Amino acid sequence: MSKLIKGIGASSGIAIAKAFKLENPDLTVERKSVDNTDAEVSKLDLALEQSKKELKVIQETAKQEMGDDKAAIFEAHLLVLSDPELVDAVKDKIKSENINAESAMDDVSSMFITMFESMDNEYMKERAADIRDVSRRVLGHLLGVQTASLASINEEVIIIGEDLTPSDTAQLNRNYVKGFATDIGGRTSHSAIMSRSLEIPAVVGTKEATTQIEAGVLVIVDGIEGNVIVNPTDAEVSEYEAKREGFEAQKIEWAKLVNEKTLSEDGHHVELAANIGTPNDLDGVINNGAEAIGLYRTEFIYMGRNELPSEDEQFEAYKTVVEKMEGKPVVIRTLDIGGDKELPYLELPKEMNPFLGYRAIRLCLEEQDVFRTQLRALLRASHYGNLKIMFPMIATLEELREAKAILNDEKEKLKANGVEVSETIEVGMMVEIPSTAVIADIFAKEVDFFSIGTNDLIQYTMAADRMNEQVSYLYQPYNPAVLRLVSSVIKAAHQEGKWAGMCGEMAGDEIAIPLLLGLGLDEFSMSATSILPARSLIAKLSKQELENVAKEALMLSTATEVEELVKTKVLK
Amino acid sequence: MSKLIKGIGASSGIAIAKAFKLENPDLTVERKSVDNTDAEVSKLDLALEQSKKELKVIQETAKQEMGDDKAAIFEAHLLVLSDPELVDAVKDKIKSENINAESAMDDVSSMFITMFESMDNEYMKERAADIRDVSRRVLGHLLGVQTASLASINEEVIIIGEDLTPSDTAQLNRNYVKGFATDIGGRTSHSAIMSRSLEIPAVVGTKEATTQIEAGVLVIVDGIEGNVIVNPTDAEVSEYEAKREGFEAQKIEWAKLVNEKTLSEDGHHVELAANIGTPNDLDGVINNGAEAIGLYRTEFIYMGRNELPSEDEQFEAYKTVVEKMEGKPVVIRTLDIGGDKELPYLELPKEMNPFLGYRAIRLCLEEQDVFRTQLRALLRASHYGNLKIMFPMIATLEELREAKAILNDEKEKLKANGVEVSETIEVGMMVEIPSTAVIADIFAKEVDFFSIGTNDLIQYTMAADRMNEQVSYLYQPYNPAVLRLVSSVIKAAHQEGKWAGMCGEMAGDEIAIPLLLGLGLDEFSMSATSILPARSLIAKLSKQELENVAKEALMLSTATEVEELVKTKVLK
Repeated sequence: MSKLIKGIGASSGIAIAKAFKLENPDLTVERKSVDNTDAEVSKLDLALEQSKKELKVIQETAKQEMGDDKAAIFEAHLLVLSDPELVDAVKDKIKSENINAESAMDDVSSMFITMFESMDNEYMKERAADIRDVSRRVLGHLLGVQTASLASINEEVIIIGEDLTPSDTAQLNRNYVKGFATDIGGRTSHSAIMSRSLEIPAVVGTKEATTQIEAGVLVIVDGIEGNVIVNPTDAEVSEYEAKREGFEAQKIEWAKLVNEKTLSEDGHHVELAANIGTPNDLDGVINNGAEAIGLYRTEFIYMGRNELPSEDEQFEAYKTVVEKMEGKPVVIRTLDIGGDKELPYLELPKEMNPFLGYRAIRLCLEEQDVFRTQLRALLRASHYGNLKIMFPMIATLEELREAKAILNDEKEKLKANGVEVSETIEVGMMVEIPSTAVIADIFAKEVDFFSIGTNDLIQYTMAADRMNEQVSYLYQPYNPAVLRLVSSVIKAAHQEGKWAGMCGEMAGDEIAIPLLLGLGLDEFSMSATSILPARSLIAKLSKQELENVAKEALMLSTATEVEELVKTKVLK
Repeated sequence: MSKLIKGIGASSGIAIAKAFKLENPDLTVERKSVDNTDAEVSKLDLALEQSKKELKVIQETAKQEMGDDKAAIFEAHLLVLSDPELVDAVKDKIKSENINAESAMDDVSSMFITMFESMDNEYMKERAADIRDVSRRVLGHLLGVQTASLASINEEVIIIGEDLTPSDTAQLNRNYVKGFATDIGGRTSHSAIMSRSLEIPAVVGTKEATTQIEAGVLVIVDGIEGNVIVNPTDAEVSEYEAKREGFEAQKIEWAKLVNEKTLSEDGHHVELAANIGTPNDLDGVINNGAEAIGLYRTEFIYMGRNELPSEDEQFEAYKTVVEKMEGKPVVIRTLDIGGDKELPYLELPKEMNPFLGYRAIRLCLEEQDVFRTQLRALLRASHYGNLKIMFPMIATLEELREAKAILNDEKEKLKANGVEVSETIEVGMMVEIPSTAVIADIFAKEVDFFSIGTNDLIQYTMAADRMNEQVSYLYQPYNPAVLRLVSSVIKAAHQEGKWAGMCGEMAGDEIAIPLLLGLGLDEFSMSATSILPARSLIAKLSKQELENVAKEALMLSTATEVEELVKTKVLK
């Protein structure tokens, strides 16, 4: 009899093949006293060298298989190997405690991992994952243990593992590896991101894949629903074969829409845009037929480094993006950073509630040097394309006015110095704080556009941290309160002849899209990979009919009722 | 020339007298190695005994001067002295490090203080203040240093100190101590609360009172404006004498309103209610002529103890309150606790953003034993007066329905067991999460009343933690967005024939009261000491005229504009 294991769909698609179990090598370390600590230090240096060589090879493969942006993770790994804080700590430990290199390495890396993990933010947790991956590699060399070589697989398989490290993923051969399922991880873990990038169906966070699945048995991975079927019956195999064919056919349909405009069934045009984090994401944007970039998060330029990025460095990044978009709109959001992210060069206060704290525009209006540098870079880049500037976390009109005044000040200074600056830059704001949604009519008079940041707007409207598992059920995009706020923001924009977009996850959501179309949203900005499915969906929807559905939704009582309404009246 | 020092008005009124400087005794501790650790332990035991005796005397005085509730702090101090965690840690340190008792005491108490202070929540910080106060007392005895005796003052003075400890405040003789000014503290620090309770004018948080004011100079403390005038001119003395007389006359006027109904100039009645934390607060409620209790915060029953309060213990507390209120309404809020408060008997998760976390009704719907026990105590107490039940932190209609279902379930069970339960208990909810304000029309159909919790509502609406100094400027009660939400909540209630109250600080605010009256708020719940000034203010206001002012305010752009409007059109 077959067995169903539920997990989180990390990468869409269906795969059917035999299970290949990714066994973690035994890296148990024995603590030994040593007399010759110099010999241990040399052993360590050798292991570090071997690890670096390996990583460089993996990095090259990754670049070819997955592109520059995904290979960047190995650059981070190489940096860990050269990080004097880590390496010196291991050497110090060998010498001061007279112990063998492997136990010193194990102790120090564990300490760093614990430290980063306890930081309780996604970015730092990923640093912990990097250190774990790298230190396992180094330990493997120190212990002379062969770490698993996925490169040697030569038949069609589905990989079953506790987790896939970035190095594991980089070695996957797409000809043979049809899918994977892991015990741990979520939609934003490394392995999930990589699986989407490689377009390999994957289910993560199953909790029990490694204990419930034996090597060699037949497995179906359904990355659409987040299901793993172990030992499927013949009927199930046929069913999923059909589902896979349907999915492949749909992908082909979607691909045809790459160069199409986004039109509803009744001919209403909306703009489908992509969210990006770095210029490296542009290939995905273009391949998926985005009509614009609706949100360029500039935080990444500031993270994982020891000093502020220079004006020129930022200018180059922004210029690259607007140029590659060839006149299509690029909405660039100014720095949105705060107490939950560490920036070694900005002393950010430790806060009790960082999501309600000193961040984004609040910080930029105080740290004006940082803000003005970014604004100058943006203004200079505006000459090279269709650049729009957007301020995050605006709560009051005074903040908006102050931010605009600073922008204008820098613009005048640049022009006085003969720098070319576009005269038609649109300036907008995120609507992600309830106060701005409630008085959007007032803000609409002083901006060129709104972009509704639903991730935060929902979080504040429901007073629930979406990262906190115990209250994540309150993260309700379909809650009538959220819909009413969204509706009034769109109305307020239109009343003043401005446009309203959305750049949260909600903009790419199948249930939300019909409602947002009905409410009159002008621009939908989402993950690049969601664009073609969204375009395909919208082509089947009548805006006029949806206006009534949306009106009805605004008067419903609960998120569940709204979801039911869309499912029965629209997506039936 | 006189000098003006600005601070925070902690207790209203004007005082003029000579400065008495409260010098902190020199409690510098020298670390010494000792051979006879037993002798040090005995020294410690003796100092603990002496401190206990002193505290018991102070506690008695405090009970007579300030009432049971304020004297409770010394019960907490006595508990610290008997706390084995602290005392044993000091003794262990003496023995394990062979050091003198005073340095062991100093080290251990510093460690505890640092630990509690770093917890970053008001309740824990107050525990740190308690430990500091107690350990200074013990150190004084160990070092043979006389700690300042405020009891010996025998002429009219104004006390100038870095801060007043609870023990200091308890020793103040109201005949001689006319006011005080401190360097540190805020409106909710111990010394501020005590000063209001003693009705001594006080200014706290001046930062520089101790450095700028010499002993013996003439000082004016203006607790209304938060000003301290050092070396006032004759003209200033006359001016403030007049201001003091005006204030005293006003207090007499206010006192006349104790037994009056609250009526606007044009005869519209609103209910002025008090917020309380424990039955001990009832004297203040009655003395200040509250028409109801609009918010009974039940958290205090749960805090500062090692096990859950029993149903009977809660029942007694609730029964005392409803009986003493003699049929006047008593709105009791169910447990509102979460990750920022430690309860040793409830394992609460450590959260990244506790204000957006697992707390209040969210926790109660999970921890149903805790919730049901409280509901049974409330239902049983309902038989003894006019008890209303209110749920905190409701975000969705499902939560409200579930809470009501559990309440009903317990009610039916009690009745089946022959327990008498009122059949007319009103059941309401706090409106403190933006989602509920936005769809208040939907909630209004399923509750008997709303109470708008502005402290939290403003915090979520503006996405700003009001405890975080760097963003506290965003805590804007007059922001048009906040006013619009308040307005729509009141409208929604009235549409369904329900009443709407408010129990945040805003309800007692001079600028907000005219607006809230104009918006049609039915019940204003505030600190007991704000009730008479509010009643006096409302008597001078015309509801009908304010309806237009409020309408105008809803269309303004900023909080500053709203404040100006009220100042120029109403409070002129």
